[in-house]
Amino acid sequence: MSSIRAGIVGGTGYTGVELLRLLAAHPDVELLTITSRSEAGTPVAEMFPNLRGHVDLVFSEPDPAVLRGCDVVFFATPNGVAMTQVSELLEAGVRVIDLAADFRLQDPAEWRQWYGLEHACPDILAEAVYGLPEVNREAIAGARLVANPGCYPTAAQLGFLPLIEAGLVDDQRLVADCKSGVSGAGRKAAQGTLLAECAESMKAYAVPGHRHLPEIRQGLSRVAGHAVGLTFVPHLTPMIRGIHATLYAHLTDAGNGLNADLQALYASRYADSAFVDVLPAGSHPETRSVRGANVCRIAVHRPQDGDVVVVLSVIDNLVKGASGQAVQNMNIMFGLDEAAGLRGIALVP
Amino acid sequence: MSSIRAGIVGGTGYTGVELLRLLAAHPDVELLTITSRSEAGTPVAEMFPNLRGHVDLVFSEPDPAVLRGCDVVFFATPNGVAMTQVSELLEAGVRVIDLAADFRLQDPAEWRQWYGLEHACPDILAEAVYGLPEVNREAIAGARLVANPGCYPTAAQLGFLPLIEAGLVDDQRLVADCKSGVSGAGRKAAQGTLLAECAESMKAYAVPGHRHLPEIRQGLSRVAGHAVGLTFVPHLTPMIRGIHATLYAHLTDAGNGLNADLQALYASRYADSAFVDVLPAGSHPETRSVRGANVCRIAVHRPQDGDVVVVLSVIDNLVKGASGQAVQNMNIMFGLDEAAGLRGIALVP
Amino acid sequence: MSSIRAGIVGGTGYTGVELLRLLAAHPDVELLTITSRSEAGTPVAEMFPNLRGHVDLVFSEPDPAVLRGCDVVFFATPNGVAMTQVSELLEAGVRVIDLAADFRLQDPAEWRQWYGLEHACPDILAEAVYGLPEVNREAIAGARLVANPGCYPTAAQLGFLPLIEAGLVDDQRLVADCKSGVSGAGRKAAQGTLLAECAESMKAYAVPGHRHLPEIRQGLSRVAGHAVGLTFVPHLTPMIRGIHATLYAHLTDAGNGLNADLQALYASRYADSAFVDVLPAGSHPETRSVRGANVCRIAVHRPQDGDVVVVLSVIDNLVKGASGQAVQNMNIMFGLDEAAGLRGIALVP
Amino acid sequence: MSSIRAGIVGGTGYTGVELLRLLAAHPDVELLTITSRSEAGTPVAEMFPNLRGHVDLVFSEPDPAVLRGCDVVFFATPNGVAMTQVSELLEAGVRVIDLAADFRLQDPAEWRQWYGLEHACPDILAEAVYGLPEVNREAIAGARLVANPGCYPTAAQLGFLPLIEAGLVDDQRLVADCKSGVSGAGRKAAQGTLLAECAESMKAYAVPGHRHLPEIRQGLSRVAGHAVGLTFVPHLTPMIRGIHATLYAHLTDAGNGLNADLQALYASRYADSAFVDVLPAGSHPETRSVRGANVCRIAVHRPQDGDVVVVLSVIDNLVKGASGQAVQNMNIMFGLDEAAGLRGIALVP
Repeated sequence: MSSIRAGIVGGTGYTGVELLRLLAAHPDVELLTITSRSEAGTPVAEMFPNLRGHVDLVFSEPDPAVLRGCDVVFFATPNGVAMTQVSELLEAGVRVIDLAADFRLQDPAEWRQWYGLEHACPDILAEAVYGLPEVNREAIAGARLVANPGCYPTAAQLGFLPLIEAGLVDDQRLVADCKSGVSGAGRKAAQGTLLAECAESMKAYAVPGHRHLPEIRQGLSRVAGHAVGLTFVPHLTPMIRGIHATLYAHLTDAGNGLNADLQALYASRYADSAFVDVLPAGSHPETRSVRGANVCRIAVHRPQDGDVVVVLSVIDNLVKGASGQAVQNMNIMFGLDEAAGLRGIALVP
Repeated sequence: MSSIRAGIVGGTGYTGVELLRLLAAHPDVELLTITSRSEAGTPVAEMFPNLRGHVDLVFSEPDPAVLRGCDVVFFATPNGVAMTQVSELLEAGVRVIDLAADFRLQDPAEWRQWYGLEHACPDILAEAVYGLPEVNREAIAGARLVANPGCYPTAAQLGFLPLIEAGLVDDQRLVADCKSGVSGAGRKAAQGTLLAECAESMKAYAVPGHRHLPEIRQGLSRVAGHAVGLTFVPHLTPMIRGIHATLYAHLTDAGNGLNADLQALYASRYADSAFVDVLPAGSHPETRSVRGANVCRIAVHRPQDGDVVVVLSVIDNLVKGASGQAVQNMNIMFGLDEAAGLRGIALVP
Repeated sequence: MSSIRAGIVGGTGYTGVELLRLLAAHPDVELLTITSRSEAGTPVAEMFPNLRGHVDLVFSEPDPAVLRGCDVVFFATPNGVAMTQVSELLEAGVRVIDLAADFRLQDPAEWRQWYGLEHACPDILAEAVYGLPEVNREAIAGARLVANPGCYPTAAQLGFLPLIEAGLVDDQRLVADCKSGVSGAGRKAAQGTLLAECAESMKAYAVPGHRHLPEIRQGLSRVAGHAVGLTFVPHLTPMIRGIHATLYAHLTDAGNGLNADLQALYASRYADSAFVDVLPAGSHPETRSVRGANVCRIAVHRPQDGDVVVVLSVIDNLVKGASGQAVQNMNIMFGLDEAAGLRGIALVP
Repeated sequence: MSSIRAGIVGGTGYTGVELLRLLAAHPDVELLTITSRSEAGTPVAEMFPNLRGHVDLVFSEPDPAVLRGCDVVFFATPNGVAMTQVSELLEAGVRVIDLAADFRLQDPAEWRQWYGLEHACPDILAEAVYGLPEVNREAIAGARLVANPGCYPTAAQLGFLPLIEAGLVDDQRLVADCKSGVSGAGRKAAQGTLLAECAESMKAYAVPGHRHLPEIRQGLSRVAGHAVGLTFVPHLTPMIRGIHATLYAHLTDAGNGLNADLQALYASRYADSAFVDVLPAGSHPETRSVRGANVCRIAVHRPQDGDVVVVLSVIDNLVKGASGQAVQNMNIMFGLDEAAGLRGIALVP
């Protein structure tokens, strides 16, 4: 089979460099172009020296003709960019994977509420497939446009899904306490993410409401068949990569949750998911166990055999939480082995 | 007034060096002795070079006569040591502050269950005062023996107390998701707390049950007047100092919680507490804002005006969570200004 | 004695917050004003929450009348600001300590070469005293204007001085390999100092030439009586605070260096310097041993008894390398105890 | 070609897990066994969860028959172990790569001096090949026993070699100021490498003499044709992986060093070395640019066009400084593509 011709729009941020790292080593992909208005002319490997010897591309001005010549285009742009450019590509037969949030929320009104912009193409939004393969694998395979999930939503949904699907818990009082490495805040210069500001410190942020809240709620509500109630608190953690989601739910008598074999439930739910690893009972996954790897490791606990279930779910926010998942979606869309180019082992220590 | 003569038993760990830092600068304390069997003969400042020029003591073998000559003795020993030595000191008229867990749980059976040892002096345990000044200030003033609270319990109780006291929340479904710096694990050589193991990573631990669970539950239950239901999950965070407690509770109609002015409640509750700082509405405290300082900073949120209250409570685990609180207790016991020696400002950045 | 009335111009950076931390706790200082055009109206404690309860000031527009009412004004401004404002203050009888570089290089041509600006007041430059108390204590006492040294220059000069003064080494081939925490790069938003860029990494920078090179060279050349030859390489180290200077020099026969008792030399040189701590022979100082403290700890080695001397010199770049030294200079200028307000103990761990 | 059957003796340390990560993904290797007396029976992936799904081996008691059935055996054991076991394997026709220090120093007397043990097999030592491929590629190809270089020696030698080979510098006054991440100290429980001890701090260690000094000196002296003079100071840096070697030498008139084109010299010297990347003039390599990758990146500077050359050389201590180099040596020994299994891209950020 001939290689898939891929392009990247935007790509000077962390999801960009991670996408380059993965695609450069992908056996079935030819990387045609990476665009950046601000960095046009700069060799990619000059900005990201880890890519020296692996990526010879130069950032270029976006050229519609070049992008239309791709089989797939990844948008690694800020929120609000992809929605203004996707239409033309889809018409040209190019398939699109958006790593930003433009197509994650199905309701344009909700999108406007949380992102502060009118949605530019609600019609296209309607056909976008939410790219969480463990939920939507078949729809992704046939999709022209995939909305790659957010990082917190990936960790939180994968952790909660088996419980919600099985109806075991009180889904009106879910709690997702999530901790993220600082790379989640992106690569742009900002005082709050300077090492001297956020090393050796921990803080919650956006407690009144974070944009990933409606995304997680949407995903869980779809599965529940009704609106779930969720409290989501993200925290800035002094490390580069990694998300640790600590999820709390109450088992209900109604759902017969107190008698469920939770370990078996999770193992069974993800038996066919190459990139979700259910750990043995009693485990405590560390984020480093997935550093650089496209995997979500999950442990499920029921402390003191009470009615509370605690799920621990870890991912690398830049891999399974962003660029790795985008490649996984591409693999599915193009009928490749879902794991192609994604077999890298996490870096420990 | 003449100086208080203080002794420290144990003191080669992190609470020990922090106690030395605070006592060395305390205007009303004369440090008489610090004991360590394993390090007897080693100058303190050789082990802890930050103390060079400030502490001239040498670690010594424990000498009962010297300890009996103290006004107060701090135990900074491993769990299970103080309970075998306190009796003699109390009889000699020495007042004791135990930084370990020996006297924190009032029920000897519960102590045995969680700490795996038979309690050596249940009679003395009965008179021990739990040293959380914001709850027990008067009892501390008259105590011969103070059980200095654990680090997580300090952050969690100070955060939950106003809600429980006011009866505003469902106290059967409390969640305390707590993040601690690695110094909380102590100074002894251990693989799990090597920098190469726990930097750049985040993990929960002891989800099935941590020793601080019964301590927090005991404190909140006393205030509630009945047993509360609490899920407590501690996390190891890649930083040296600091605890961030993220606390979740549901406001109840019964308690009229949905109409409460939570900000005013917290401000009022801690108006007379010099070392609890209630932040303005909408704040997100960082652990670094208390690094090295004896203060707990708290913010209270009610996301999207729903029925969930989220409390953010941060302390330095070695100061307000250990040695600083011990000094605060000493100040209260000896009738000093409660803030004496504790006015140091947190180190930022 | 009545308090010294102090003002700070600029103060939203790291040297600013550190100066506030130190002055707020200084027994002999009344802090009158802190200016910031960009932050006028913002309470200081809102920007720096560690100062809540300790500093009630609000950033204000610079008001010449208020500044003229101070006994001393600290400039914690970017390079090039103080030189345009100092004249007026000096005329009003205010004494000035500049924490920036404006008055560090005595030669205006050299200043222009390294800082890219014409010096605004070469006449005043001529009277400025270089504020390294261990060299210039007497001149500082009588100075109207003190140029507070740079961070690297403080660590490097204090480490090299005894050798140069004694003429023991080949001063044409000095090497200063220096490692700095990231706070040395300041608090302004910049990509290069994001946690996700510089944590878990080490790099040299400015190898072709750093602005502190001429400053160190000037200080050592003065002492040598002729121009010394120095190679200076700074490194960005993944920590917040701290400078570790590793200094290399060759002992010369001519200077009889091979027979010198280096340990005694250093001990004697700094016997009267409260803030230089010469460690016992064989020591390896850690930067954390001075974190938050106004002290330089030094160890001197002669590996394998060869002809190379290796000096290890550590400071906290924000304290002895900036704000602490500024307070030390103020103490000397106003005839206070040199250690007033500077007795804080380093924070370990 | 059939797979190479590989075994690992020892392997519970960091070089062990890194070797497993690399060999598990190597296209031409079948991993037969990994031994550990202390962990016999433990699945490898239980100790190193990053290997879950990639390595199914269980640590086993060393079994001579199994090891003799290997084509190659890697020793990832503490110093002093391999030298007692290698003889038997060599006789059985197994080729050996020792990641420890047992065969690095050619002179048994020097080995005894620095490692405190009598060498167990000086005769075998005589045939061991020092496994720095950029120097000894041909000898490695034919070797039965390869001594894999130390981490500091790899970074320092690769940086100095072109200068020494070309005779451009005063090789009696070389300085190697090296900074290492904490993983270099190994995975065994030790107080000094606890996160709470060495995060947020920097220190030199072993200034009087480090075991890698004679190794670097040996390598450079061979090339120089006479004994070189070297000062080597290692530093513990608060990060997990990475070595940054900052190397200083004086260009000599005699060697015509002042007229040399250093950039061209380095580019030419390493033109055929796939794993040494000479950066463009003016570069400052970061250790993160090689994190997880088997590459040494080098920049060469001549500050202010003076007579000092400063070389910056960075590696990942666990890859090019240990396990990656071991795999590179294996590839050479078995006639594989030198880069087989070593094309992984460094993880940034």
